[in-house]
Amino acid sequence: MKIREALIEDFDEIWPIFHEIVSAGETYAYPQETTKEQALKIWIETPRKTYVFVDGSQILGTYYIKTNQAGPGSHVCNCGYMVSSKARSKGLATAMCQHSQEQAIKLGYKAMQFNFVASSNQWAVRLWSKLGFDTVGHLPKAFNHPKKGYVDALVMYKWLQT
Amino acid sequence: MKIREALIEDFDEIWPIFHEIVSAGETYAYPQETTKEQALKIWIETPRKTYVFVDGSQILGTYYIKTNQAGPGSHVCNCGYMVSSKARSKGLATAMCQHSQEQAIKLGYKAMQFNFVASSNQWAVRLWSKLGFDTVGHLPKAFNHPKKGYVDALVMYKWLQT
Repeated sequence: MKIREALIEDFDEIWPIFHEIVSAGETYAYPQETTKEQALKIWIETPRKTYVFVDGSQILGTYYIKTNQAGPGSHVCNCGYMVSSKARSKGLATAMCQHSQEQAIKLGYKAMQFNFVASSNQWAVRLWSKLGFDTVGHLPKAFNHPKKGYVDALVMYKWLQT
Repeated sequence: MKIREALIEDFDEIWPIFHEIVSAGETYAYPQETTKEQALKIWIETPRKTYVFVDGSQILGTYYIKTNQAGPGSHVCNCGYMVSSKARSKGLATAMCQHSQEQAIKLGYKAMQFNFVASSNQWAVRLWSKLGFDTVGHLPKAFNHPKKGYVDALVMYKWLQT
């Protein structure tokens, strides 16, 4: 098992993971009907780097890293993580988040920010908290959950450099 | 004096306002060296709508409105406002912010969010507070101010629909 940079050829394996998560509409701020072509742009082309978590030749998870704000905000990065439903609860999100923090420092970032964590996604909130992220923002009713309606979204943040 | 939608021809007059503010690096999350071509994309092409505040034929202020997050976040908009140094302290920012809230409701948005207000920009923080925005997030050292160094950035938010 290892984490490596994604290749463009990986996208056919990334897409089912992306589609499964985004079409559910419960965690990511992308339209549920996002197409494969749009997903390629969002996940591979726009970010600064994209990585995959592979077990043998199988892709089980993926994350991207990008600059969160330009100019005076460009020392803070943003990441998004996705794990295949086939590989949940096996520590992949933790492994990818730790890997992303190391990569972020190598890329020159000083902090990492998650802009839009659905408060209903308690699993993620607990995990990021455990990994050292503080909840620094609370956006009232900013996330329109397909089952729960408007729920709060959280901003989570970690200063990476000591 | 009125506020109207910006035309592409307005950009030659918008650019000096944009450039003056962005090259100072003290308030907006755009690179200080942003070019005119990049500014056109940022301020006119990317947003959902752009407006100008005009006095006779002269453009003294401008703002954009766009969707802040896609999918489950698409009911929240984001705006940015710029006032020419020739027209500061005359209520233009207030007039544009009030106008933008009306437009936001017309466009179907339910809330407005400012993602990255430099805490050092106390004038803006006070004004948005007065206009009903709550400080819902506090991003530690997220804004690299050219004179003050790393300062906190604030997330400000207002639910528009009662």
